[in-house]
Amino acid sequence: MQPDLRQVATILQELQDSICDALETEDGEAQFVEDRVESENGGISAPRVMSGGTHIERSGVNFTFSLGDELPKAATARRPELAGCGFQAASLSLIVHPRNPYVPTTHANFRCFVAMREGKPAVWWMGGGYDLTPYYGFDEDAVHWHRTARQVCDGFSKELYPSMKDQCDDYFYLEHRKEPRGIGGVFFDDFRLKDWSTSVDFLQQLGQSFLAAYMPIVQRRKNISFGQRERDFQLYRRGRYVEFNLLYDRGTKYGIQSGRRIESVMCSMPPLVAWSYEPDLPAGEAERTLYERFLVPRDWAGMEI
Amino acid sequence: MQPDLRQVATILQELQDSICDALETEDGEAQFVEDRVESENGGISAPRVMSGGTHIERSGVNFTFSLGDELPKAATARRPELAGCGFQAASLSLIVHPRNPYVPTTHANFRCFVAMREGKPAVWWMGGGYDLTPYYGFDEDAVHWHRTARQVCDGFSKELYPSMKDQCDDYFYLEHRKEPRGIGGVFFDDFRLKDWSTSVDFLQQLGQSFLAAYMPIVQRRKNISFGQRERDFQLYRRGRYVEFNLLYDRGTKYGIQSGRRIESVMCSMPPLVAWSYEPDLPAGEAERTLYERFLVPRDWAGMEI
Repeated sequence: MQPDLRQVATILQELQDSICDALETEDGEAQFVEDRVESENGGISAPRVMSGGTHIERSGVNFTFSLGDELPKAATARRPELAGCGFQAASLSLIVHPRNPYVPTTHANFRCFVAMREGKPAVWWMGGGYDLTPYYGFDEDAVHWHRTARQVCDGFSKELYPSMKDQCDDYFYLEHRKEPRGIGGVFFDDFRLKDWSTSVDFLQQLGQSFLAAYMPIVQRRKNISFGQRERDFQLYRRGRYVEFNLLYDRGTKYGIQSGRRIESVMCSMPPLVAWSYEPDLPAGEAERTLYERFLVPRDWAGMEI
Repeated sequence: MQPDLRQVATILQELQDSICDALETEDGEAQFVEDRVESENGGISAPRVMSGGTHIERSGVNFTFSLGDELPKAATARRPELAGCGFQAASLSLIVHPRNPYVPTTHANFRCFVAMREGKPAVWWMGGGYDLTPYYGFDEDAVHWHRTARQVCDGFSKELYPSMKDQCDDYFYLEHRKEPRGIGGVFFDDFRLKDWSTSVDFLQQLGQSFLAAYMPIVQRRKNISFGQRERDFQLYRRGRYVEFNLLYDRGTKYGIQSGRRIESVMCSMPPLVAWSYEPDLPAGEAERTLYERFLVPRDWAGMEI
């Protein structure tokens, strides 16, 4: 079957709608605002941002559809044979920065790339995944998060989840801190299953599982009472998120280099962040547990709880 | 005259003392804490950090003296002929994040590098400078800042200031925002004057002029009353500082890559930072003036006021 990127674009736009709806409902107050821009060649940039909610301090859920006569350099570095090819790309990228420090931050991305070659079949691949960054960890949340992802993966192949889990741990790692960003999840790139329609199915099912993975955690934790101590720790830990995004994240780098609207690239930034000088801040047991139990690669999906 | 790095190290340590003293006196409350580490080979790392002051929200004033049998790669990339040489380096690096948004943030660095070659004269060079990042701009501050630097430079050569001012504007530029970081100052690298002692004189005089350049501005602005609006704008603009340091700054990158104690590298980070999604926030006249009048390369030293 020839790849039809409109099919993926439709899936990702529906996913954007359902995720924004669920986050608005969960928040109960704030709403997403969309700054849609359509380019002359048919491209669409539809960033949606929600700020200042009761439970969600900031969220960005951005859909983009881009196309061009020539693949961007970033995409042909590893595929020199595709230089000069026309291409289409669709992507949904999202981040949630909750207000309550007991609710973890999350990030997800689902994308598909198609390169058209004259007189030959198109070349295509997919990428994305989702990962979770708790401030205060809960075993049951971590297990639920990973099992939800594993369940989707296992429906296609038992080999998928372990590989994508490892790739996630490798990618979301702050080398300069010798620290994982969070408890991981799944991450994949240059990805194809046996054919186009199976791969689209996988992308769709994984995308749809995001809400099943994240929302129960939000619901369980969003009303836990917290004070200045937890807030301070959250703001401090958000600094790691900023460090990761600006020092390492390929999506942020690509967004900056490609000259995309900078506000849309930077909407992944937490609304408020603190840097503390104290090397081992804070010393409380709950905070130490984050480092000692949760910021350690672990087989969460396989844990008995 | 053969270069004697101990001479520069002594000058920079005296400078560290006088700058810390002046900042403590100006703040009137907070004090610097030093985390001195001496390495086995005779190196010294003496970061001093002050946090939570009345007027100074955070300041880091770090002296380091390092030496080794082999130049680090970062230093020989542009000087392959020096690979394998023994070296000594001394550096004073500082940053001040004031509490009052009417007081500008500042950064300064003074450093000297000596590479020893067997049977040949040592190779040495200096680098550094200082730059200013206002949140609310004042012509008289900008003029004073640049004239103070120019006066030191002119004492050595009329060509120094214009060149170092341009290098500063070039270096402290956020390409992804198409925005200067602040109003600049002076910046130099790979720098030598006609001989060692003249160059040391220059580094010392420029270093000593930092307080003359910065403190009168602090004194003029630190008691201006401000409200949430100015604070919000300051926190928002501090985001640019973080973006610069993590995306572009060579000192931060070098610190991260060289495996220095990460808290000392990151002590340049502002204590509290906000990212806002709104592309043109805020729209007030005072804030617009920052962008339109101050975040534009300008011949401040030559301005009639």
